[in-house]
Amino acid sequence: MAGEEIKNIVDHPAFQAGIRSAGVTYEMGEEPEYQDLTKVRSPVINEDISRWTHLMQNEQDAISKVKLMRGVGEHLCFCGYRCLTADALHAAWAMTYDVDKKYNTRYHQNAIEFTKQVQKNDWIIGTCSVDPKGDRSKGPGEQTDPDLHLHVVKRTNEGIVVRGAKCHGTASPYTNVIMGMGSIPKTEKAKDYAVLFYTPVDAERLIIISRPPRKSYQAREFDNPFSSKYGAHVESLVIFDDMFVPWEHVLLCGEYEFMADFHRMLRASHAWHKSMCRWASLDLSIGTTALIADYNGVGHAPHIWNNISELVISAEILHSLALAAALEGWKHESGVYFPKALPVSAGKAYSACKVGEERLFMQDAAGGLVATMASEEDYRNPKTGKYMEKYYKGRDGVPTEHRMRAIKLVEDLTASEFSGWYQAMAITGGGPPFYHKQIVMENYDLEKSKRKALRAAGIKE
Amino acid sequence: MAGEEIKNIVDHPAFQAGIRSAGVTYEMGEEPEYQDLTKVRSPVINEDISRWTHLMQNEQDAISKVKLMRGVGEHLCFCGYRCLTADALHAAWAMTYDVDKKYNTRYHQNAIEFTKQVQKNDWIIGTCSVDPKGDRSKGPGEQTDPDLHLHVVKRTNEGIVVRGAKCHGTASPYTNVIMGMGSIPKTEKAKDYAVLFYTPVDAERLIIISRPPRKSYQAREFDNPFSSKYGAHVESLVIFDDMFVPWEHVLLCGEYEFMADFHRMLRASHAWHKSMCRWASLDLSIGTTALIADYNGVGHAPHIWNNISELVISAEILHSLALAAALEGWKHESGVYFPKALPVSAGKAYSACKVGEERLFMQDAAGGLVATMASEEDYRNPKTGKYMEKYYKGRDGVPTEHRMRAIKLVEDLTASEFSGWYQAMAITGGGPPFYHKQIVMENYDLEKSKRKALRAAGIKE
Amino acid sequence: MAGEEIKNIVDHPAFQAGIRSAGVTYEMGEEPEYQDLTKVRSPVINEDISRWTHLMQNEQDAISKVKLMRGVGEHLCFCGYRCLTADALHAAWAMTYDVDKKYNTRYHQNAIEFTKQVQKNDWIIGTCSVDPKGDRSKGPGEQTDPDLHLHVVKRTNEGIVVRGAKCHGTASPYTNVIMGMGSIPKTEKAKDYAVLFYTPVDAERLIIISRPPRKSYQAREFDNPFSSKYGAHVESLVIFDDMFVPWEHVLLCGEYEFMADFHRMLRASHAWHKSMCRWASLDLSIGTTALIADYNGVGHAPHIWNNISELVISAEILHSLALAAALEGWKHESGVYFPKALPVSAGKAYSACKVGEERLFMQDAAGGLVATMASEEDYRNPKTGKYMEKYYKGRDGVPTEHRMRAIKLVEDLTASEFSGWYQAMAITGGGPPFYHKQIVMENYDLEKSKRKALRAAGIKE
Amino acid sequence: MAGEEIKNIVDHPAFQAGIRSAGVTYEMGEEPEYQDLTKVRSPVINEDISRWTHLMQNEQDAISKVKLMRGVGEHLCFCGYRCLTADALHAAWAMTYDVDKKYNTRYHQNAIEFTKQVQKNDWIIGTCSVDPKGDRSKGPGEQTDPDLHLHVVKRTNEGIVVRGAKCHGTASPYTNVIMGMGSIPKTEKAKDYAVLFYTPVDAERLIIISRPPRKSYQAREFDNPFSSKYGAHVESLVIFDDMFVPWEHVLLCGEYEFMADFHRMLRASHAWHKSMCRWASLDLSIGTTALIADYNGVGHAPHIWNNISELVISAEILHSLALAAALEGWKHESGVYFPKALPVSAGKAYSACKVGEERLFMQDAAGGLVATMASEEDYRNPKTGKYMEKYYKGRDGVPTEHRMRAIKLVEDLTASEFSGWYQAMAITGGGPPFYHKQIVMENYDLEKSKRKALRAAGIKE
Repeated sequence: MAGEEIKNIVDHPAFQAGIRSAGVTYEMGEEPEYQDLTKVRSPVINEDISRWTHLMQNEQDAISKVKLMRGVGEHLCFCGYRCLTADALHAAWAMTYDVDKKYNTRYHQNAIEFTKQVQKNDWIIGTCSVDPKGDRSKGPGEQTDPDLHLHVVKRTNEGIVVRGAKCHGTASPYTNVIMGMGSIPKTEKAKDYAVLFYTPVDAERLIIISRPPRKSYQAREFDNPFSSKYGAHVESLVIFDDMFVPWEHVLLCGEYEFMADFHRMLRASHAWHKSMCRWASLDLSIGTTALIADYNGVGHAPHIWNNISELVISAEILHSLALAAALEGWKHESGVYFPKALPVSAGKAYSACKVGEERLFMQDAAGGLVATMASEEDYRNPKTGKYMEKYYKGRDGVPTEHRMRAIKLVEDLTASEFSGWYQAMAITGGGPPFYHKQIVMENYDLEKSKRKALRAAGIKE
Repeated sequence: MAGEEIKNIVDHPAFQAGIRSAGVTYEMGEEPEYQDLTKVRSPVINEDISRWTHLMQNEQDAISKVKLMRGVGEHLCFCGYRCLTADALHAAWAMTYDVDKKYNTRYHQNAIEFTKQVQKNDWIIGTCSVDPKGDRSKGPGEQTDPDLHLHVVKRTNEGIVVRGAKCHGTASPYTNVIMGMGSIPKTEKAKDYAVLFYTPVDAERLIIISRPPRKSYQAREFDNPFSSKYGAHVESLVIFDDMFVPWEHVLLCGEYEFMADFHRMLRASHAWHKSMCRWASLDLSIGTTALIADYNGVGHAPHIWNNISELVISAEILHSLALAAALEGWKHESGVYFPKALPVSAGKAYSACKVGEERLFMQDAAGGLVATMASEEDYRNPKTGKYMEKYYKGRDGVPTEHRMRAIKLVEDLTASEFSGWYQAMAITGGGPPFYHKQIVMENYDLEKSKRKALRAAGIKE
Repeated sequence: MAGEEIKNIVDHPAFQAGIRSAGVTYEMGEEPEYQDLTKVRSPVINEDISRWTHLMQNEQDAISKVKLMRGVGEHLCFCGYRCLTADALHAAWAMTYDVDKKYNTRYHQNAIEFTKQVQKNDWIIGTCSVDPKGDRSKGPGEQTDPDLHLHVVKRTNEGIVVRGAKCHGTASPYTNVIMGMGSIPKTEKAKDYAVLFYTPVDAERLIIISRPPRKSYQAREFDNPFSSKYGAHVESLVIFDDMFVPWEHVLLCGEYEFMADFHRMLRASHAWHKSMCRWASLDLSIGTTALIADYNGVGHAPHIWNNISELVISAEILHSLALAAALEGWKHESGVYFPKALPVSAGKAYSACKVGEERLFMQDAAGGLVATMASEEDYRNPKTGKYMEKYYKGRDGVPTEHRMRAIKLVEDLTASEFSGWYQAMAITGGGPPFYHKQIVMENYDLEKSKRKALRAAGIKE
Repeated sequence: MAGEEIKNIVDHPAFQAGIRSAGVTYEMGEEPEYQDLTKVRSPVINEDISRWTHLMQNEQDAISKVKLMRGVGEHLCFCGYRCLTADALHAAWAMTYDVDKKYNTRYHQNAIEFTKQVQKNDWIIGTCSVDPKGDRSKGPGEQTDPDLHLHVVKRTNEGIVVRGAKCHGTASPYTNVIMGMGSIPKTEKAKDYAVLFYTPVDAERLIIISRPPRKSYQAREFDNPFSSKYGAHVESLVIFDDMFVPWEHVLLCGEYEFMADFHRMLRASHAWHKSMCRWASLDLSIGTTALIADYNGVGHAPHIWNNISELVISAEILHSLALAAALEGWKHESGVYFPKALPVSAGKAYSACKVGEERLFMQDAAGGLVATMASEEDYRNPKTGKYMEKYYKGRDGVPTEHRMRAIKLVEDLTASEFSGWYQAMAITGGGPPFYHKQIVMENYDLEKSKRKALRAAGIKE
């Protein structure tokens, strides 16, 4: 990471916020208020497990998950990096079932074993799904350098050897296990790109080059009141440098026609979780806008009120799309339940386009100090601090430091390195708007609508 | 209506489309495919009744209603004017229960009797809720002319005498019974405005001044392929010209503090139904855009594809908001179930602002002929028709008349008197955007969000 | 028109509003206040002429034209159908000059003669530019029916014979002369489609099938206060049924590589004029919104104020784009001056997407009566009129009839057949958004911006 | 600054980008290509001076200024902090002229002397205009602490003593002279708040608490390719701690009714300049989007093309608003020329709402690496660099480092501390959207539009 070889992740300052974010999902398990949401009986190991590793069986499970995600949001955490564990397990479980059914392979048994381990140990899976891709107009096997998509380079009796890299390894170093996911080959010729496996995070020939959440490692609580505590994850380039994977860890290898299914299920599940993260983010934006407007003495200004109402509408839309996806989901033959793709992708495309508005409204309420307020050092320095104490005052009754902290919160959420990272999460993370519009169009019955239009027009084709 | 005294509504051309639209809701009851949705056991009369008059008991009832509304949309009908019957019954049922509980009055018994009649006879209630209001900055009792809001002018042993008018009496003449609804008084002084009652549509001193759905009564199927069949309702100014209402038909009279509750419940229910109407409208817009683009040979143009995907996202948002409102609704102590107000009002405010986009996309795909295509008369005239046949041709394989009809459908939906009426329904019908933003803000727990922001900012107030 | 053969256009009710609109442009010539704008010295005939037929020589001419268009807007007229006369003359003048220069042809002399006639007689040219096009994914000469684009079918010593039709012949029957414009051939093979000529409007084998501005011919001043007076033009399908054109009226015939230039110049000029029409429309929307809000007693409501401010911003953007196009235009070698295409097309694409908002804001201020108010007949009828007088009252001090007229104005502008026609004018008239985005992209120096990005990124390619 | 007392601004790393940005405006004066724009004859000192200090006399001057601003944008500089010098001089010149005319004071003579100094020495004025304001719902003199707006606390024969602070002192430490500007008092009682003066930047009792452009002082060229060179200004809280100002430096003191005029002129001029800064920013966004899309192999994807066309439209709108404001400006009686306020404020409000879209489109084209790409240190380290070289490759023909730099440029422009600062500049700098909507509404002749609506509705009031 940034030229440094990290020996001890746990104590390194760059990893604190990320680890603490993941920790929230574990801590909630201890809170009585959330027991019903966090604990659930696993039909796989027939024990009580954390809902984060649970395979959903029906819409009630899905609705509970929406509520759990909302609870995480209330714990101030946009991203505990826990949702992907379930996304990966569900998709792997269902896809391996289908492959085995067709080819009489043994992938599903591997998936069952893997699921048991994850559930028993309450693991986090680091999912590695996005290839470098090189020339984006070309697919797996079409690039000049064949390694720009992850692929199998060797098969032995013991297992396979994989080569390639994955770009957006959020939280990878502090997960328990990595799942490597191939891309979707267009033809059988590229079937070596159809691969799915898992591996311990400390496997040999697995190389992780990380990026710290901010250039200066040390986040300060005053400057980054939110992201010094939560959300600011370490990102990584994860390289499979001819890494060996034993057959028991392989969940797909060459049955290329199933790769698209896998990604479709993975993405529906993941973007569904993201809807609720975005709800959490919007809800914090709403509260922050209301708070700073209040401190500035304009809590009741009509234009601020209107801005907040727009944010509330967006938040409610995202929550409702997540709920509808849960309610109208579908049960795979293998027993696991998936949210409906259409509302999920509608939500992802919708919310990506709303990030700018969210930030506009927060800054509009806060004013220019978001970008110009002098530093904490000067505030703590008696020589300069007295001036800041006097001149950064808000409405009567609000201590200056409270207002300064509220402004710093707006800065942290709209104008910091963390806000830059989160913006990218919201826009391209889980797939950019165009990708989700494609899913939307694939999942809407356009022909049925056209037939309705024909009837409306009185046309008998 | 337009200077004419209407003796026979049933055969009058101006009423055809409206009556046919309402008819759809009855006809669906006969279709086997919709039996499960249209029929339901009434806990009030313990008989199978139409779901349109059913009092919902739980979220499952609510979800079924969403599906029923979707079914109506598939029958090409944006507005069967049937939803308001249930809106009125639910709100009256619950509100009278509360009033009786507090004041030991007998309104709820009246509501029960009324509900029984409506359910037994499968009636449509014409709801009359919006006062003329005069100066909109003033409330009931504050206007120079006290009659600009409906109010009680006399009480006798037999009943009450009411005076006032209601502005947007959609479908009133062809309903079975009219429900008159007072406005919300701000103080006890204006309690005469707190009134709720029902009356036969042919009561004495009940005057209805109607407006035809189009200036030329006769809709032609070619020119208005959709609205000549469905949706184009007669609107009315309904006047209560010192009309007498017997006590057994009175559901509220003077207990002014309950009027706001009534309207809150009525509007939540009504705007919820409207979400699904708007879904039906959006779905038809989607199909129509796809159809005319196909006929024009540009069905796969990227910008058309993108426009359609935007419409699909909007449609799915509305459907999901309706579902979420059903799922997260609440049961009133009296036993009836209401959808949640927040997603409902979010949907109404959201969709009002989307009408323009919907029309832009349809017209963009159709081209200028929407506004310039010559008339059916000239098409049927051999002298001129041959030119139109030749020059209004679309892509190969599409008969000219089909393309002309598709263009006429776009005109009907975007550039006709009907489209003007429907636009107003979508924008101000059921309350304009600002009204629903107010409901959104009342129903969102802003203080909770602010507390979250305080925690995020590290502020201990 | 609609099955009727029109013998006398002047007295026919369907043509009144269109003729009156064109008339405005002549009447302004008599008003002292507008003398400086309407009269100008023609360098072609060296006489004072109307600016509507003037060939602009420089940016000052262009700025004056913007002001003249604004003056027309102040005369309540969105569309006097006068701008296209100049659009056609400028493009024909410049293009013929270039053709003659290359091929030593005599088209420019014809253009000069034509210009002289138009200027001397103060003519209106009916431009016919948009082909039926059939399958829009195919160009001239690629359709199954070759006549779906206008083309030359015969050449003789005396002239040419043309066949085809033009779709959106706004105002055609009441212009003085028709200009027929070919489409842009992709290859020389299709050079017969490269044709430009003019013809008297009563030429033999020129067939006009018209569409009345509303289904019921008779516009009533109360119901359509605006469009009964102005703007509601007759549209036509104009057919060149093997029509003969003498060589002196031919401005291009076969020099296919010039057709694109012609259309580029024509469209830049035309869309520029349309920017100012849209300003006039927006300005009326602003005034109408303010008026009805005032009558309703909510003239100072913050959300109405905000809506109006949005409309004002849009109006000012359009005015500024028109001015900038005038200021940064270019002088063709032949002496005529053209507005800059980039701001013009930016404005057309921008404003097409704003129509929906304009209507939303007007209706939001007006309320549901836009779609439900009873008819004038009932208002004039003493039996029903007294109720309407009483109940359609607005704030104190506003006569009921004034409020009713203001509501009818909103209806006329947002929910009438006229508003349907105008919407199509605003969206697809002069080219749909996608077309203008293409022009925007052709006219922006993207490579220069990329070079700037390279410098910003510190990349030396 | 950040706890450090800065002795030497020139060599301190935190000031480099800011000083370099200002430097661009001086360097351009030496470039032959820009001679006509940068040099101009001053009517005040009758010498050739820099246009940055010139008092505009007419629209030609204003148009030249627009071109000069565009030139600065082409030099990669959004903000040279030079425009405010002219903004302040124009407004002071005109306002003092009016005050002297009314009160026979000597402020204008002071303004003339000041202008001469600024022009002769080619100075930059640091304008200090925005008060802390405390409770924003209260004005000058209404706060609990009277010092929350700058005011005069003492008058002597020699001069005045001022107390207060100004919040957003962009670039203050590296300007030549500070101009202190009072707020607008509502009544005469608060006339001590009506004050305008200038002072050397190193005056006694003038205290500047600065904030560095990024938490880690040292910008690296690779990580922040743009903002390490340009734009990243130091912001300051500027405190007038009972500072003395001699009468010859006082430009207003107590004539409170002129303060609003001053700010109106200052803001119109300043927001006008900002239109062109925003153009420069949009143009760089356009180039950056095109560049990274090209490197990713999707330079011709329709959705990217569409996004770029939207940005071009926005850029052209801003350029045109600036030009129109220049063309339709007004000449003050004192001889100086001002841009028209309406298009200027329309542009500011419009562009503030477009920042989000700009960033969405850049990130959409670039992909997730904006937030996840590993660091330069690891790229330069042979052990890890080889993997990044391989896996961060774009389309063939593009060196990996070029693509990495292009991605870093997107990060710098959308997801860095600099981008946070610039976002606030674009949203609230020069006044937030609501402020400019107020100006828009004050400057639009709404009554004229209403009269037009009355005529359109056929209402004779």
